[in-house]
Amino acid sequence: MKVTLRRFTPDPEQAIIESASVCWKSVPRKQILPHIIKAGHWTPLEFAQFNFRIEGVSRSLTHQLVRKRVGVAFCQESQRYVKYKGGFEYVTPESILHCDPGVTYCDKDAYQVFLKAMRSAEAAYEQLLELGVPGEDARFVLPNACCVTIDMAINYHALLDLCKERLCSRAQWEIREMVGLLKEEVEKVSPVLAEYLQPKCYWLKHCPEAKPCGRQAVSGQ
Amino acid sequence: MKVTLRRFTPDPEQAIIESASVCWKSVPRKQILPHIIKAGHWTPLEFAQFNFRIEGVSRSLTHQLVRKRVGVAFCQESQRYVKYKGGFEYVTPESILHCDPGVTYCDKDAYQVFLKAMRSAEAAYEQLLELGVPGEDARFVLPNACCVTIDMAINYHALLDLCKERLCSRAQWEIREMVGLLKEEVEKVSPVLAEYLQPKCYWLKHCPEAKPCGRQAVSGQ
Amino acid sequence: MKVTLRRFTPDPEQAIIESASVCWKSVPRKQILPHIIKAGHWTPLEFAQFNFRIEGVSRSLTHQLVRKRVGVAFCQESQRYVKYKGGFEYVTPESILHCDPGVTYCDKDAYQVFLKAMRSAEAAYEQLLELGVPGEDARFVLPNACCVTIDMAINYHALLDLCKERLCSRAQWEIREMVGLLKEEVEKVSPVLAEYLQPKCYWLKHCPEAKPCGRQAVSGQ
Amino acid sequence: MKVTLRRFTPDPEQAIIESASVCWKSVPRKQILPHIIKAGHWTPLEFAQFNFRIEGVSRSLTHQLVRKRVGVAFCQESQRYVKYKGGFEYVTPESILHCDPGVTYCDKDAYQVFLKAMRSAEAAYEQLLELGVPGEDARFVLPNACCVTIDMAINYHALLDLCKERLCSRAQWEIREMVGLLKEEVEKVSPVLAEYLQPKCYWLKHCPEAKPCGRQAVSGQ
Repeated sequence: MKVTLRRFTPDPEQAIIESASVCWKSVPRKQILPHIIKAGHWTPLEFAQFNFRIEGVSRSLTHQLVRKRVGVAFCQESQRYVKYKGGFEYVTPESILHCDPGVTYCDKDAYQVFLKAMRSAEAAYEQLLELGVPGEDARFVLPNACCVTIDMAINYHALLDLCKERLCSRAQWEIREMVGLLKEEVEKVSPVLAEYLQPKCYWLKHCPEAKPCGRQAVSGQ
Repeated sequence: MKVTLRRFTPDPEQAIIESASVCWKSVPRKQILPHIIKAGHWTPLEFAQFNFRIEGVSRSLTHQLVRKRVGVAFCQESQRYVKYKGGFEYVTPESILHCDPGVTYCDKDAYQVFLKAMRSAEAAYEQLLELGVPGEDARFVLPNACCVTIDMAINYHALLDLCKERLCSRAQWEIREMVGLLKEEVEKVSPVLAEYLQPKCYWLKHCPEAKPCGRQAVSGQ
Repeated sequence: MKVTLRRFTPDPEQAIIESASVCWKSVPRKQILPHIIKAGHWTPLEFAQFNFRIEGVSRSLTHQLVRKRVGVAFCQESQRYVKYKGGFEYVTPESILHCDPGVTYCDKDAYQVFLKAMRSAEAAYEQLLELGVPGEDARFVLPNACCVTIDMAINYHALLDLCKERLCSRAQWEIREMVGLLKEEVEKVSPVLAEYLQPKCYWLKHCPEAKPCGRQAVSGQ
Repeated sequence: MKVTLRRFTPDPEQAIIESASVCWKSVPRKQILPHIIKAGHWTPLEFAQFNFRIEGVSRSLTHQLVRKRVGVAFCQESQRYVKYKGGFEYVTPESILHCDPGVTYCDKDAYQVFLKAMRSAEAAYEQLLELGVPGEDARFVLPNACCVTIDMAINYHALLDLCKERLCSRAQWEIREMVGLLKEEVEKVSPVLAEYLQPKCYWLKHCPEAKPCGRQAVSGQ
């Protein structure tokens, strides 16, 4: 998995501060940023947009990711148009990666089953293409594990919302890893903005999940 | 594939007409509906919402469908939570369904390749579950062809926009079939509203596609 | 001010429960509703939509209200098209309504100033129309206090979000009153759904405002 | 009225082209831009965002402008927080600006009525403040003509949609003027992107309005 911040609104903190201060016709001051974030006035945060490229993630992840509808745009590699000649790349979950085929001692199990499934899917896909089946139909045999590239434009308000859900320890591992990398990329250009990219318990000051991770106290209720 | 309209705003035409007439403080008259639709004043159309259940469609379709972000909500069967014990159902594209295994004469090809791929994926999925791999990771071997159920709430404005793209003869066959069934369901409760569920060339009065189907003349430009 | 719930998704609780249970392919049970609300899985809540008519509110209120962009549609009486012959109705803030002109003892002040301003605006507006100025330009003299009617279609997810901000004691009085009436209308058709229409401190379990009202403890931070 | 483009996605054309080419895994070429625009594939256009400051426009205009809900964010000077001591600025419609008070020959009419209305509103507003009425209530006497500043962040997809409606000769004059200035600002940084900022008849290749301006032929239908 690889995440790259390709473009963003120049001087994103200042962009937010200057537009936020229009509301009060006030002088744009640095303190406005933590103030509006803590008070929940998040519309001005939409004046900073970040464009990411996300590579080497599974179609399981992208199917989940594109469910986000607000403040975000996606350009995803289309299996309808792109043909995977000579095999496709795929994501192997940690829980399956128990043993490595090049290693002598190995339980040979989950990983072998998985590898075989990938090879079967590759073979079927290539045969269908050779038989003249259109790419958009041959892809019906491609597995969720298939790697794709997806570009995401997201404003800072929507990014905060994404982190609320997906940085939570209860989030699915692949998307949590990806959102962690988004945060690292933002950190390089604005440590101040990166600091607020936090799971929802940070904002609630309690954990609403049925199975808490211990980061925040569970609510007394 | 099965599409069912499960609930909708009562008296949807009247709901639109009454709210549209607030703008002009006018008497709600039937003629307002064609007028606002033709004039492109589509916000009042959002006062009618339709809730559909869509069953027996592929994950390829749903991945495409959930890209729609405005005026729409989805509840999709989650492969993270649902376990497919004893095999999963799948969608077979027409281009692959050349021959039937129960038939004596058969070119044995595309369909056999496809069937074998489905069985391999099923076997791999079940073995991974038996080896203790969590369902959310075992699903990485499931193919795009896998059937799911998805519920969609969509307002009439967004439904018009969906039809613009997906009723076009250039749209992918499975989603075009599905949108055709949405239209049939609306027709049962409001023939007037169903009538405007049309591909984009209906509104443009010309075809903007590189490969036109002939329904509308290609623009002279 | 008058708020009327004119139409809504039939059986709104059940609509939500049935679509939410698609995610887990589970039996639709009543307990799903409080579960998804508390867990923050609010997308299924968009399967219930409520259409309200709001009458007798000021243009100050509607200018604020229409800032809500997600899950909501508005049809507002247009001062561009509607002409107010014979005077317009207006909203008088409580802080101005200190004295009543029909009452003998009266400080004669704020309310008199306000009344005079309304009459001046009415006179100017009518004179401009008589001089042939188009209605869309004559309205430039109309005050914020001017009453309008606005229809709002809003799904239950968006309604919860609206209440978070606008039922807070720090919200502007007129819009807080209006949202209180929305809640009363929902209560008539679904006490269960109405119960969750609460200010943000209900969800946070602490008050994030600089000037707390005491309903929830201020966060220790 | 003054419109300033304050910030935008660096190299906006290239940002769009690079993300659009992810869909086909193709080399990012300049020709992709006109292709996707003409074919109606407008999601990649959301990878370019423009932040404008708009000054000296009426509250009539902003009330209309903020009705736009998709791909756009606003920060508006709030009459709830800002106090207009010593008078407010206002917009005078052309239709009212027939005569100038400094000119000897003058029909004395519409403009005088308008000026008087502004002065009455100013006087009432100041008196209410002096009497201790809170600013958020005193503003109820302020007219639609009142000037405000509003910041708008808008992606290029949403900007195209805004121009479809608001560059049409049937749009209200003040907002049409404003959108014209948005276009001029974009032209300075990207003539290519500015070129597509056009009224809806440009895309339809016919005029759907009841009272056409003649720019495009009325549809035969």
